[in-house]
Amino acid sequence: MLNFEFYNPARIVFGKGTEESVGERTANFGKNVLLHYGGGSIKKNGIYDKVLKSLKEQNLNIIELDGVKPNPRLSLVRKGIEICKKENIDFILAVGGGSVIDSAKAIAIGAKYDKDVWDFFISSNMAQEAIPIGVVLTIPAAGSESSSSCVITNDEDNNYKRGTQSLAYIPKFAILNPETCYSLPKYQIACGCSDILAHLIERYFTEVENVELSDRLIEGAVKTILNNAPIAYKDNTNYDAWAEIMWTGTIAHNNLLNMGRIGDWASHQIEHELSALYDLTHGAGLAIVIPAWMKYVYKHNIDKFYQFATRIFHIIDEDKEKAVLKMIETLEKWYCDLDLPIKLSQVNIEPIKFEEMAERALLHRGTIGNFKKLVKEDIVKIYNLCM
Amino acid sequence: MLNFEFYNPARIVFGKGTEESVGERTANFGKNVLLHYGGGSIKKNGIYDKVLKSLKEQNLNIIELDGVKPNPRLSLVRKGIEICKKENIDFILAVGGGSVIDSAKAIAIGAKYDKDVWDFFISSNMAQEAIPIGVVLTIPAAGSESSSSCVITNDEDNNYKRGTQSLAYIPKFAILNPETCYSLPKYQIACGCSDILAHLIERYFTEVENVELSDRLIEGAVKTILNNAPIAYKDNTNYDAWAEIMWTGTIAHNNLLNMGRIGDWASHQIEHELSALYDLTHGAGLAIVIPAWMKYVYKHNIDKFYQFATRIFHIIDEDKEKAVLKMIETLEKWYCDLDLPIKLSQVNIEPIKFEEMAERALLHRGTIGNFKKLVKEDIVKIYNLCM
Repeated sequence: MLNFEFYNPARIVFGKGTEESVGERTANFGKNVLLHYGGGSIKKNGIYDKVLKSLKEQNLNIIELDGVKPNPRLSLVRKGIEICKKENIDFILAVGGGSVIDSAKAIAIGAKYDKDVWDFFISSNMAQEAIPIGVVLTIPAAGSESSSSCVITNDEDNNYKRGTQSLAYIPKFAILNPETCYSLPKYQIACGCSDILAHLIERYFTEVENVELSDRLIEGAVKTILNNAPIAYKDNTNYDAWAEIMWTGTIAHNNLLNMGRIGDWASHQIEHELSALYDLTHGAGLAIVIPAWMKYVYKHNIDKFYQFATRIFHIIDEDKEKAVLKMIETLEKWYCDLDLPIKLSQVNIEPIKFEEMAERALLHRGTIGNFKKLVKEDIVKIYNLCM
Repeated sequence: MLNFEFYNPARIVFGKGTEESVGERTANFGKNVLLHYGGGSIKKNGIYDKVLKSLKEQNLNIIELDGVKPNPRLSLVRKGIEICKKENIDFILAVGGGSVIDSAKAIAIGAKYDKDVWDFFISSNMAQEAIPIGVVLTIPAAGSESSSSCVITNDEDNNYKRGTQSLAYIPKFAILNPETCYSLPKYQIACGCSDILAHLIERYFTEVENVELSDRLIEGAVKTILNNAPIAYKDNTNYDAWAEIMWTGTIAHNNLLNMGRIGDWASHQIEHELSALYDLTHGAGLAIVIPAWMKYVYKHNIDKFYQFATRIFHIIDEDKEKAVLKMIETLEKWYCDLDLPIKLSQVNIEPIKFEEMAERALLHRGTIGNFKKLVKEDIVKIYNLCM
């Protein structure tokens, strides 16, 4: 186990009716509130009305900024920063999923920074200051509601999709009511669960040894998402399944599960180029990339893969390789049962840009991945395994 | 899953050499520091010197209060409160295990309260204010380094041992270097691991349904402590085993694992009377009480017990009762392998005070336990099962 520092001061407010407290919680941080959200879904499902009512009861000055798209764009972030500076915003309330939260995080740090906010995304500089933010989560997926990560797409420069890390913008509170998930479209349910699973898998595969507790905690979380995603997918008003998924989504990405170890993250970076160039939903891209990545790297540490296969899928075989391949197959079936693609051909992506995407993935960094460090050639091979 | 709120802002600083940062971290909170510890063990193992050196480098005003005993006493807490008020203490640094930390917590809330600090321990009032505290942990056991609990023994009134809960005294930082455990006596190693296991078991057995994620996380933590305690017990300088135990001890009690569920805690309360009247070490008492409690309550929800037996100990039997009894036997063997007592007779405690202890356990509350609510008759029967 490596030395580590764990600090996560997000307050998770979980359960039925919890969104009714949003106004009171927001009012603790000031008068001027930027209400940030995406499109019409929160208006259709009633969350927007509930949140606005609760905020208005506290007589807050509310300025709205909507229009966040999946793979949130830098241009909208810039607009948000301008509003924050002009209107003396005290608090940013993000109502939505990971894209809205990440957009809010980028605005929060940009508004306290006198240079270009994109600097944080192309360097290892961590933002030290942010406008406090709060979250009403409507899509369990990205885990951004209590994470130190933020991923933004630069729509002004080749759609580069890059992430940054900071403790400054960890939400002051995140309200999670599993009932808000009832109205999610099937495709979004599947993509969200795929994203959560990927956060766990990226953390699991590490070359750091003697990490028994976190291995076992991740295994428990993986089992939970594997079990509950198909239930919510079939029965979208199943509170219990949604509660498991939503809580797992938070735990999967609040940093607890990678303390003392180093996650891999190559699959995320390989996928980012797919969603950047083809605007593929992140969770769908991960369903394609994760099995391909596994096929490419498992021989690098077959014992870790065999442990994953036996402890989670109960696949036991004297021939470890056979067991691992069976595990990957089982995982692919799980994605298929959620009607997710597991091949690029299913989403009409052809191999023509593999070289370009590999180069883009490596820009601003020499290699990707930590479990196994990957160079351009490796990444192209993994894209080929996605076909 | 029940509605819940999770908030734990403790900063866990984990690993080799981390105690060297204690001065700098302490200095962030002010000049006047109460250095609180137990007896001579931290002087013998060098931790005291290291901490003092680091504090002195920051030119802090250090006032020392030593003498914390296992089952920390109210009288010393009162002394600490007096010092804090008189000396304008800004920060309390607890160097030790759960007893020292709990003593520091009680001092921290007492110093900010104008009535009797014992009020918090005999009512459901939660302290709202506390002097900030920090921790250098030397014994993994109580989990107090990031928990909201604090247990104090009232040596002025019949040695009543009572707990309180508050978010106000959650340590600002807790420094955990597994190497500090190398010098622990064997008995303390065993008792600490028994306490950690008990925190997990108390949380596991709940009547709340649909708690799959937390069930599985607890199972992972239980497996880790079961595996690593015997290793550290035999090989007391095994860093990897200590790292697992220390991190598990924190996770076991930082509230994460009981979100959305209600733990039982009867075993703790039954044991508290043993350690109060006979000054038995808490972890040793738990090794006796936990199996007895299990034998008494398992029929109340055999499925939950069977799940524990199969998922953790891989005991499978069509006859669930047989499997559960086998699990309890296996657990008893685990305690025995750590040379812990599993019967009161082994620690020369006779049945003469069972009635009195049951009455004491029920004082200030009608029943104990949540998995199965216990009245006096039940508690006496459990004490009898401890014979």
